[in-house]
Amino acid sequence: MKAEIIGIGTEILLGEIVNTNSALLSRKLAGIGVDVYYHSTVGDNKKRLYEFIKTALKRSDIVITTGGLGPTIDDVTLETVAEVLEKPLILEKGIADLIDAHFKKRHIKMPQNNLRQAYIPKGATWLRNNIGTAPGLVIKIDRKSLIALPGPPREMIPMLDSYVLPYLKKQSKNKAVILSRTLKTTGLAESQLHDKIKGFMRLSGDTTVGIYAHPGQVDLKITSKASNSIAAKRKINSIEKKIRRRLGRLIFGVDSETLEENTLKLLRNKTIAIAESCTGGLITSRITDIPGASKNLLCSIVAYSNRSKMELLDVSYETIKKYGAVSMQTAKAMAISARKLSRADIGISTTGIAGPAGAINKKPVGLVYIAFSTTLKTLVKEYHFSGTRESIKFRASQSALNMLRLYLLR
Amino acid sequence: MKAEIIGIGTEILLGEIVNTNSALLSRKLAGIGVDVYYHSTVGDNKKRLYEFIKTALKRSDIVITTGGLGPTIDDVTLETVAEVLEKPLILEKGIADLIDAHFKKRHIKMPQNNLRQAYIPKGATWLRNNIGTAPGLVIKIDRKSLIALPGPPREMIPMLDSYVLPYLKKQSKNKAVILSRTLKTTGLAESQLHDKIKGFMRLSGDTTVGIYAHPGQVDLKITSKASNSIAAKRKINSIEKKIRRRLGRLIFGVDSETLEENTLKLLRNKTIAIAESCTGGLITSRITDIPGASKNLLCSIVAYSNRSKMELLDVSYETIKKYGAVSMQTAKAMAISARKLSRADIGISTTGIAGPAGAINKKPVGLVYIAFSTTLKTLVKEYHFSGTRESIKFRASQSALNMLRLYLLR
Repeated sequence: MKAEIIGIGTEILLGEIVNTNSALLSRKLAGIGVDVYYHSTVGDNKKRLYEFIKTALKRSDIVITTGGLGPTIDDVTLETVAEVLEKPLILEKGIADLIDAHFKKRHIKMPQNNLRQAYIPKGATWLRNNIGTAPGLVIKIDRKSLIALPGPPREMIPMLDSYVLPYLKKQSKNKAVILSRTLKTTGLAESQLHDKIKGFMRLSGDTTVGIYAHPGQVDLKITSKASNSIAAKRKINSIEKKIRRRLGRLIFGVDSETLEENTLKLLRNKTIAIAESCTGGLITSRITDIPGASKNLLCSIVAYSNRSKMELLDVSYETIKKYGAVSMQTAKAMAISARKLSRADIGISTTGIAGPAGAINKKPVGLVYIAFSTTLKTLVKEYHFSGTRESIKFRASQSALNMLRLYLLR
Repeated sequence: MKAEIIGIGTEILLGEIVNTNSALLSRKLAGIGVDVYYHSTVGDNKKRLYEFIKTALKRSDIVITTGGLGPTIDDVTLETVAEVLEKPLILEKGIADLIDAHFKKRHIKMPQNNLRQAYIPKGATWLRNNIGTAPGLVIKIDRKSLIALPGPPREMIPMLDSYVLPYLKKQSKNKAVILSRTLKTTGLAESQLHDKIKGFMRLSGDTTVGIYAHPGQVDLKITSKASNSIAAKRKINSIEKKIRRRLGRLIFGVDSETLEENTLKLLRNKTIAIAESCTGGLITSRITDIPGASKNLLCSIVAYSNRSKMELLDVSYETIKKYGAVSMQTAKAMAISARKLSRADIGISTTGIAGPAGAINKKPVGLVYIAFSTTLKTLVKEYHFSGTRESIKFRASQSALNMLRLYLLR
C-alpha cells in the first residue's frame, strides 16, 4: 500500500515549527509494511488544501493529514475533507459530550468555538483524543483511506498507536514488514566507503543499503522488506556479514550505539586520562555522557594556555619553544603526562588549531595532533580536518576516540 | 513571489531524518518577503522527482530543492533537473577543479564518482560549496527560478546566506517583510515566564510573541509583519523594550547568541579556571566552542574520581570523607583550587549526581552543587535537576554559566 502524509499549518510554512510528525509517521508506517511515497505541507488555506487532498487521493491508497483540527476558524481540515468527499458536516454528539466534559473537568466554560470540532463529515469514524479536544477521523472511500489526525505530537501519537496503526495493519493485505539496521563507521570519507561497498548499493529485490554521511562518521543503513520479521532479519544478517567482511574494524557500532559508548565498553577495567587542548573538553564530555564513565575515566585536563600545558602537564618550556604548542612533541608530552599524573593505563591528548583564527606559518586551521600513550609505547598522528571550529573539534574528538578503540581491539 | 520547497531523500520519507531544511528556508524566505506556499518531500526516485519539479514550476515562481546532489548513484537531482528543463548535462571545469582540490587538501585520492557532481544542466549558474563537494545551482526559466541546494544543513545554510537570499531579494518585487527576533532566557521555567509576560502573548495586528521551551532555556520570539523592514523592526523594538523591562537579566541573548557566547563576551579580560565533576567537561567544551575562548579560559580539570579531586584539586581527604564528593564543601574547595592553581580571576566548579545510577541516601540523582570563587568571595548553590543524564549535565552547565554571567553583570 502506498501512503502519503500531508502536514497542515501555516506555522510550518513560515518555519516557526519543524514538522516532526511526518518523520514519526513514516517510521511507524514502515514498521507495518506501508510505503510512504510523499510528504507535503500546506498552510491553513481551504483552496490549496482541497487540491492537495484531491491529488493525494488519486495517487495514494492511504492519505494521512496532521493538523488543522483545532477550534479556531484557521482550522479548516474537517470542512475541506467534507467538501472533497462531497459529504455534509453533521454534529456528532459523542464528540460534543467529550469536549464538554474536557472543559468541565478544568472548571472552564466551554468556548462556543470548540463545538466546531464536533461537526464531522457524514460517514466518518471518529477517533477519541485523550489529551486535547480535537477528534481524529478515519474515512473509507472505496479501497482508499483518508485519516485526519491532530497536529500536536502529544495528541497525534497516542491516537496513531491506539487506533490508526491497528486499523492500517488490518487493511493491509500485504503482511510485509520493513526492518532496518544501521552500521556506523568512522575513519573513511563517504566516497571512499562507497567505493568499498558499492557492490552492495544496488541489491536486487527488497533489500537496500543506503549511505549517510555525518561529520567524522558515515552510516550504512541496511533495509529489508520481507513477508515477516524473521525473514527480514535473516536478509539483513546476511548483508551485514558481507559488509563486515569488507569493512572490518571501520564499523564501530550498530543502530543507536555511539563511538563513545562502544569505546567505553571496550575499555573494560582499563583506566584513562585525557589531556585536551584544541578539543576543549569535548572528548571528556562525550565520554562522561555514558553512564558508568567514572569507572574508567580518572581525570581530564583541558590545558588551553601554554602555561597550563607546562604547569599542569609538565610539557617542558623547551618543547613548546622549539616545536610549538601544536606539534607532535607537545601532543606526546601531554599524553604521557596525563597518564602518569593520574596513574591511568592509557593517556590521550589533542593539540591543534580549531580556528577560525590561529593559523600560523605552515600550521593551517584544522591541523591537529592526537597522541596515545601506554606504559609500553606512545603514538602520535597528524590530522587535517576541515569545517567550522565546532566541526573541527568534533572530528578531532572522533579520531581520538577511534584511536583508542582501535588500540583496544588490537 | 510564491515559493515552494522540495526536500529530496528517501531517508526523509522513511522517517530516518527529520527535514529541518524546509523550516529554516521558510523562515529566511519570510524574512525577505517571499511567501512559501508548499513544502514537499520525495524520495531518491527520478520519476517522482520529475513530476514534482514539473508541478512546482507550474504553480510557483521560485522552486528550491534540497538534497540529492551527492556523489552516489542515489543522487539524482542534477540529471532530473536537466530532464525537466530539457537541457544536456555538461562538465563544468570550475566545479571539477574545486572537487579535486577538496580531496588534495585532505591527502585523499578523488573517487571517480565525485566527478558526477561537476556535470550540471547547460545554462545553470553554479554556487560554490565551501564545506563539501556538492555545488548548488540557480537556473532562471523565463520569470521563474529553480534553485538546487545540498541537503546537509551545514552545506546548505552558508550557500543560502551567501548567494540565494541576495539573489532572491533582487528578484522580489514585494517589499512586505516578516521579521522576527528571539529573546533567550534562562533561570525560569516556561510557565513561570509565561505568567510574567502573558500580557504580550495576544497582541493585536501583525505582531506576535511566541514562547518556546528548551532544557534550561526558554525563548521568546517576537514576529512582526510590515511593509518594510524599518517598520517591522520598529514594532519589534517596542515590544522588546517592554519585555525587557519585565524580565531584566533573565534575558541573556538575542537570536543566535548562546549563553556561552554572551558569558565569554562579558568576561572581557578576566580569566577563568574550571573544575568539573558531574558536568564532565561540558562547561569547558561549550566555552571552547566560542572562537577566542583561549584568551579567557586558562585551564579546566575534570576530576571525576575522588583521588583526582584530592590529587589534582587539593580537596582534602577530610572534606570528602566528612561531607562526601557531592557536597557544598567539596564544590567550594574545587572552585578555590582551580582558581589558585591557574592563578585565574575566577574559579568555577560543579559536583553532583548525573545518574541514572549513583543516588545515595539523601543525595538523589539530579542533585548538583555549583561553586564560584574570586579572591573576594566564594559562593555555592544547590540545584535539583530532572531528566536524563545528558539533560542533567546540560542543565548544570547552563546554571554554572548563568551564575558566572550574573556575577559579571552585577
